Amino acid sequence: MPLPVPVLPQGVDPAWLPPAAFRAVGGRRTVIRGSGPMAETVHGEVAQACRRFGGRVVRGAASDGACDLVLGLGDEGLGEEGLGEEGFTCAREGGTTTVTASGGRGLLYGLFHVVRLGEAAFTGGWTREPHRPALALRMLDHWDNVAVHPVMGQVERGYAGGSLFWEDGRARGDLERVRAYGRLLAACGINAVAVNNVNVHETEAHLLTDRIAEVAAIAEVLRPYGVRTHLSVSFAAPVMLGGLPTADPLDETVRGWWATATRRVYEAIPDFGGYVVKADSEGQPGPFAYGRTHADGANMLAAVLEPYGGTVHWRAFVYDHRQDWRDRTTDRARAAYDHFVPLDGEFAPNAVLQVKHGPMDFQVREPVSPLIGAMPRTRLAVELQVTQEYTGQQRHVCWLGPMWSEVLRFRQEPESSVGERARGGLVAVSNAGDDPFWTGHPLAQANLYTFGRLAWRPDAEPREVLDEWIGLTFPEASERLSDGVHAVLDGSWRTYEKYTAPLGVGWMVQPGHHYGPSVDGYEYSPWGTYHFADRDGIGVDRSVASGTGYAGQYAKPWAGLYESPDTCPDELLLFFHHVPYGHPLKSGKTVIQHIYDTHFEGVEEVEEAREVWASLAGLVDPVRHARVAERYEEQLRSAREWRDQINSYFFRKSGVPDERGRLIY
Amino acid sequence: MPLPVPVLPQGVDPAWLPPAAFRAVGGRRTVIRGSGPMAETVHGEVAQACRRFGGRVVRGAASDGACDLVLGLGDEGLGEEGLGEEGFTCAREGGTTTVTASGGRGLLYGLFHVVRLGEAAFTGGWTREPHRPALALRMLDHWDNVAVHPVMGQVERGYAGGSLFWEDGRARGDLERVRAYGRLLAACGINAVAVNNVNVHETEAHLLTDRIAEVAAIAEVLRPYGVRTHLSVSFAAPVMLGGLPTADPLDETVRGWWATATRRVYEAIPDFGGYVVKADSEGQPGPFAYGRTHADGANMLAAVLEPYGGTVHWRAFVYDHRQDWRDRTTDRARAAYDHFVPLDGEFAPNAVLQVKHGPMDFQVREPVSPLIGAMPRTRLAVELQVTQEYTGQQRHVCWLGPMWSEVLRFRQEPESSVGERARGGLVAVSNAGDDPFWTGHPLAQANLYTFGRLAWRPDAEPREVLDEWIGLTFPEASERLSDGVHAVLDGSWRTYEKYTAPLGVGWMVQPGHHYGPSVDGYEYSPWGTYHFADRDGIGVDRSVASGTGYAGQYAKPWAGLYESPDTCPDELLLFFHHVPYGHPLKSGKTVIQHIYDTHFEGVEEVEEAREVWASLAGLVDPVRHARVAERYEEQLRSAREWRDQINSYFFRKSGVPDERGRLIY
Repeated sequence: MPLPVPVLPQGVDPAWLPPAAFRAVGGRRTVIRGSGPMAETVHGEVAQACRRFGGRVVRGAASDGACDLVLGLGDEGLGEEGLGEEGFTCAREGGTTTVTASGGRGLLYGLFHVVRLGEAAFTGGWTREPHRPALALRMLDHWDNVAVHPVMGQVERGYAGGSLFWEDGRARGDLERVRAYGRLLAACGINAVAVNNVNVHETEAHLLTDRIAEVAAIAEVLRPYGVRTHLSVSFAAPVMLGGLPTADPLDETVRGWWATATRRVYEAIPDFGGYVVKADSEGQPGPFAYGRTHADGANMLAAVLEPYGGTVHWRAFVYDHRQDWRDRTTDRARAAYDHFVPLDGEFAPNAVLQVKHGPMDFQVREPVSPLIGAMPRTRLAVELQVTQEYTGQQRHVCWLGPMWSEVLRFRQEPESSVGERARGGLVAVSNAGDDPFWTGHPLAQANLYTFGRLAWRPDAEPREVLDEWIGLTFPEASERLSDGVHAVLDGSWRTYEKYTAPLGVGWMVQPGHHYGPSVDGYEYSPWGTYHFADRDGIGVDRSVASGTGYAGQYAKPWAGLYESPDTCPDELLLFFHHVPYGHPLKSGKTVIQHIYDTHFEGVEEVEEAREVWASLAGLVDPVRHARVAERYEEQLRSAREWRDQINSYFFRKSGVPDERGRLIY
Repeated sequence: MPLPVPVLPQGVDPAWLPPAAFRAVGGRRTVIRGSGPMAETVHGEVAQACRRFGGRVVRGAASDGACDLVLGLGDEGLGEEGLGEEGFTCAREGGTTTVTASGGRGLLYGLFHVVRLGEAAFTGGWTREPHRPALALRMLDHWDNVAVHPVMGQVERGYAGGSLFWEDGRARGDLERVRAYGRLLAACGINAVAVNNVNVHETEAHLLTDRIAEVAAIAEVLRPYGVRTHLSVSFAAPVMLGGLPTADPLDETVRGWWATATRRVYEAIPDFGGYVVKADSEGQPGPFAYGRTHADGANMLAAVLEPYGGTVHWRAFVYDHRQDWRDRTTDRARAAYDHFVPLDGEFAPNAVLQVKHGPMDFQVREPVSPLIGAMPRTRLAVELQVTQEYTGQQRHVCWLGPMWSEVLRFRQEPESSVGERARGGLVAVSNAGDDPFWTGHPLAQANLYTFGRLAWRPDAEPREVLDEWIGLTFPEASERLSDGVHAVLDGSWRTYEKYTAPLGVGWMVQPGHHYGPSVDGYEYSPWGTYHFADRDGIGVDRSVASGTGYAGQYAKPWAGLYESPDTCPDELLLFFHHVPYGHPLKSGKTVIQHIYDTHFEGVEEVEEAREVWASLAGLVDPVRHARVAERYEEQLRSAREWRDQINSYFFRKSGVPDERGRLIY
């Protein structure tokens, strides 16, 4: 039975799968070969498209006469290519486009490949191209609470309404929208989600045991889209839920408790993906309490998951969040490396160490975490943040594709990129919620889509991914519209960087909620996030020679390049060095003049983007246009606030006037 | 029937009315003359004391033989003195102490006068002394919510647990502790309370109408202690509750709605005191929405209250809380004066304009509000803040008696003090809650007591009031204990001032909750609360010559004295002037050195006070001692944080080293 395409609730945006995106497929004659659940998913998609656009779909006759598209499961002709469960080939010959996959997910990804190509899929001819994901795990973490948290709300760091999964304290009864979410994820290549906040509170802890049926219901609707379900669990679960006196990972009763709990999880969800754990971090419990290492903790969970093919995702986000700001020797940037590198080689094969891409916490600009190059004998997953905690909270347009691409292409010696080193996968904190546009800001959908595509192919050109997203989302767009949407998104990350914290120094946000400027907001805090600005200069000395030594955590060539202000890239200068305001950048400008210039420029760029968007009225559906236009007003207000606060702060402190005599308050 | 003395729940501190405070009265023979509810209250008090200490009390025989104390209601001998309902005389002759009052409340206050005197009431002899309160209204505003507010909690700006009045969304079923609270208030002279937050939310709005019975229940238990109950109401009540399309104060249906609502209030509470209103302030609704003045708004409510002898308390806390920090011409300090002085003479006789004592908002140091001297034809009430929002939140010892006394004695020409001008009364935001010590910090009880006594006699010497409080609270104290408690409280306000924002500039607190330092926390905010520190200097120019003109709102001699940095008192210098860090104070120190010195001194003084308190262990009951000792740890931690953040901030900005070379981070 073909699986019916999910029906979106009234008013919910189809995102990058509007009906018209299926026009090319839907108008043609398609044969589907093979069986199994994914073939039914594919069949349902094509059948729906054909109903709309007049095409025809039949199931796998050996000889099927004239047809435009064959979507086939099978080994024929695949030879030794080893496409695996997720890969597929695509060829076009004699007027027929043929997608062949050896696994169900490959078939589904092949269909969406054809959808992305549109008419081009049915034009000309080409020999068989193999497509396979570079990374086996392409995952979204949802920081969703089941019970609404009094401070953090339902979705921690969520800017798109409530949770897609949980409502009124339990899993949604109607999971049709979750199914539609799974379909969107499949269409950009994501194959895993964690359905609850990694800060596991009391209510959510129970999902592991007596509330596993709710997780199973979610897994059930995601499964036909190739998405495996994961659960964030509390390291203290044996104590919290099991009534044991300890959660010591080497204690036999603890291991037994986890083994039993895990067996029951797999009884409910046979393809369950595994656990996500934030341990000994920002107040969460962990193995340190028992004098055990993180490897001890992770391996204990890996062992109980191993028989079922599950994985433990152990986050490396461990640092002292009660640091004394007076103490300049402690450096939060060093923490993950210092904690984890000594454990390299000690983690089980199915324990994945999940490392944030930068050493701090998803600032608009950070160096790549040196940990990623320093644990060759550990399966690492790299964590990105699609939800825009520090990048405008989906009130600002900030398309992060170029930033992620820079991270994924970053190489240290020996020559392998971050994208290649992330053998454990690419993971991101989702930006989706129950907002009608899924992501609050309609243009923030581009971040979610781009993440999925980069996880599939980390060396993809992000601007091509952006155009892919535009093509799907606005399938009948004029060139003017496509160009306009591209224009407002393409440079938006650098624009955001320009009007916020300068030159890699980070933070300068309002404490707590992290929206809007507060230059000293974290300067005298226990969070380890300082800029050390005084009347003479600014920046954090992380050199080996005179600073915290963090620069020395890198391999070649970066340890050397970061060590000196002369060779450190401008955009990270204040992350690595404390320099006078008159320090000349490679651009020829002084640091202080750079601060003034970029802050004026950033606001001007927002003004321009707002104008571009305004000019698209009439080309975009009015609800979407209005939502974006309204957010541009807020972005502009906020960008001006950033500009004026940052410029005033540094003018008041440095006393250096703007060379161009612009208004600084 | 004598009214039984309230029974405190187990573990609740008796505050300044411990049983032993009644030893002198309770061991003697007392005659009570007169009748009425207050006489029963007095009788109950004396009877309980006698049961405990072996004395005897009889009711009003004409000839009563030998007795030590006569507490009598009656006019005999009072002549033309006009003591009113609240005054009393006290004389001692022939071994008998005689208190005479013409009203019930006077009798009660007379009893507590004798209790305060203790043995001295029964020693020697003196001719009749009249005692009458200088101010007719001595009131506490409780910023208590009925429904717990998601951000502000149950008691807005409360630091002593939940509400005394409200629990689980309604008035407490057991009001015995409220009765005990009324008794404590009577013993220090307070005669009015408002039972709900002046920011009136949805739930609380209904207290005026369908939930008035709950207010009546509270009024019932406060009445025997001479405390009249008031209610904070929403100016928008006719819309919110009455379903009217407008709350325009000149609209007849609106006036009719209020008249009916008020009649029903008085049916439930015949001695109801009146309404408290925060209108057109910080988002609360008000007459501006209808193009009406504050006088129009206040007078409309005054008119409906007038037939019943009620009063409307109209707060003058009106300013632009969405100010642009870039705009240096707008000055929040000017706002109350600018808004209200033009209305002088327009308010009804039973409309009281309630003015905060300073022009900003209860900072540790502010000048006296110039409004207080500028509305001679208006009944003004002066508002103090007993709850320590900006003065350590009852985690720090900060006895505010000296500050309040300075305010109340402040004179402008023509020669009358603030205490004399406050014809509408003295009002304070209470610091009491359902904490076992009533006020969180046991020593913060001294603030509540001192407020009541200063309201009774604004020119009282605050240190004598402090000793009075010590004498009552620690009735069997050794000299060492009394001296020790006096020592830790006496200078505590100046100590707090030393380690927090310097020289009258105010703020520098963490936004939102207002606890702990954040020098720039409000610097780029819309709240109108700036210090304008740059690398050269600091302070707000409020002079007429070159600043906002605020100094010109004062009468002689202050307008002239505040106008110039040469004559402005040191402690307010930065409130009135922007000066270089090298500006010499009258003390001979520069501003920057003063900042360093006071911040080091302030912490040292906390360290000393903590030692003094530690030395009192064994002299104070252990629970109280431990509570205070624990809070001293937090005070010291916090004071050090203030010291280091303020000193670092100004060192980094000014570059001026500490003359004494102490550690600045």
